[in-house]
Amino acid sequence: MKVKIAKNSGFCFGVKRAIRMAQNAAEQNHEIVTLGPIIHNPQMVEKLAQKGISVVKNLAEIKGRATIIRSHGVKREILQELQKRGIEIINATCPYVSKTQEFATQLDREGYQIIILGDKDHPEVIGLRSYVKSESIIFSDATEIPDRKIKKAGIICQTTRNIQDLQKLVYELIPKTDEMRVINTICNATSVRQQSTIELAKESDLMIVVGGKNSSNTKMLAKISGRIVKTYHIETADEMRSEWIRKAERIGLTAGASTPDWIILDVYNKIIETTGEFDKEVRNVEDIPGFKEEK
Amino acid sequence: MKVKIAKNSGFCFGVKRAIRMAQNAAEQNHEIVTLGPIIHNPQMVEKLAQKGISVVKNLAEIKGRATIIRSHGVKREILQELQKRGIEIINATCPYVSKTQEFATQLDREGYQIIILGDKDHPEVIGLRSYVKSESIIFSDATEIPDRKIKKAGIICQTTRNIQDLQKLVYELIPKTDEMRVINTICNATSVRQQSTIELAKESDLMIVVGGKNSSNTKMLAKISGRIVKTYHIETADEMRSEWIRKAERIGLTAGASTPDWIILDVYNKIIETTGEFDKEVRNVEDIPGFKEEK
Repeated sequence: MKVKIAKNSGFCFGVKRAIRMAQNAAEQNHEIVTLGPIIHNPQMVEKLAQKGISVVKNLAEIKGRATIIRSHGVKREILQELQKRGIEIINATCPYVSKTQEFATQLDREGYQIIILGDKDHPEVIGLRSYVKSESIIFSDATEIPDRKIKKAGIICQTTRNIQDLQKLVYELIPKTDEMRVINTICNATSVRQQSTIELAKESDLMIVVGGKNSSNTKMLAKISGRIVKTYHIETADEMRSEWIRKAERIGLTAGASTPDWIILDVYNKIIETTGEFDKEVRNVEDIPGFKEEK
Repeated sequence: MKVKIAKNSGFCFGVKRAIRMAQNAAEQNHEIVTLGPIIHNPQMVEKLAQKGISVVKNLAEIKGRATIIRSHGVKREILQELQKRGIEIINATCPYVSKTQEFATQLDREGYQIIILGDKDHPEVIGLRSYVKSESIIFSDATEIPDRKIKKAGIICQTTRNIQDLQKLVYELIPKTDEMRVINTICNATSVRQQSTIELAKESDLMIVVGGKNSSNTKMLAKISGRIVKTYHIETADEMRSEWIRKAERIGLTAGASTPDWIILDVYNKIIETTGEFDKEVRNVEDIPGFKEEK
């Protein structure tokens, strides 16, 4: 039997940075909160809670405590309000998201009608549009474009969208604009994880996808993988059943951008233990056969 | 029998303006030349020759005479050289082409890699690229895009290209650029002429396309029309044969952007004369049934 992990698995750059910032802050401060769960992974949120980082839902619940801004950012007004109240801010907004917010501000100032390719209810998009003084337009995909002219269109994207959606949107907008400026703010962490999952699924008899049941990107990996081969989506090693594994010759493992390393390692070690091929415990995701982070 | 002209036929705005400028100049000046034929219509060129406007091929042949710059413009260096030599310039460059040249200069100055959608040997494109200090890239269509990254791409178009080609080019360039600025410099005169020709061809038994045998846009109308119905491409009424017409119940007439009104009128009047339905001579293209210039 052979176990392999998808080339790009687990924490992306922005999530890794946010968790590190939260952990560093927790070591120095006993009164600390995050505005909403820091990432969509219940086990990681629970681990941080043990270190004294609790989750609050709104400004009223902060009560003067140091506040972590999670990786997909928040509305500009919230940051300003925190500053006004003199609250210590640990800004863990992903640098790619911050960059997108800057582009939004710049294009807006230069007179472009801002068009965001994204989901209007996603926290990143809710934050992003607050950086635009005039009203921005949000398209989830190209089919939503109305039949009217937009003189100067400035297009930016939610960082986790895929490039094909941007291509289609721009294709359809061309006849409706005199001038178009497109800033490709898509981060490839999402697409490389999906691509690696597809590649691995094709050479596996069974795939195990690890990550929060509330994590959109993990669910998407499970969906994509499930189209190719038998796939199980689990949050932790406890959920794994030995009968799944024993039948498989080639087992593939993958994990979403919000899945911490220790959970992936638990799952991997349990697999090799179950199959009786356990030699010694693996302590780094990088040491699982197949792993190779690309950017 | 019914004769109709395509809604948009004959001179476009830029050609109309260039011819008017040439005629005005000829009335005031006896020593006048055009650098290359002013439009691709031998009859119009001949008519202007009778008014004293001759065609020269290069700067050496100008010999101090006032010089008309034709509608698709020339290289910036040529204009500068004419100015240096103190030659009177009648600049009949189409305002849409001038605007495209200005966009090229501006995007180049702002650090964009200029990409021109166009034909590299077309006079308009040869002129256009001279307005770009750095080397511009010219793509005739999306299949020519190489597999490499372009950080900041500034895209402009030869004014007679069609919008679908621009859409395809932009679609393919999106994954290869971080930032893209697209100025839609396509003039719709070409597409509305083609569209009107298609509409008319569909309701005709016979189409007659009038215009220079050396005119690309007229040849394209004949090609498009010929796919739908029996079509003849003629330069003047003399070429028309009565046997074509007698058999047809519904005759459609169309003309390229460089076909002068008097030639279209000649053809129309000859048709109604041939079919015996001649009432009185029509003296304006606007009076031919079906005509309706759109912009």
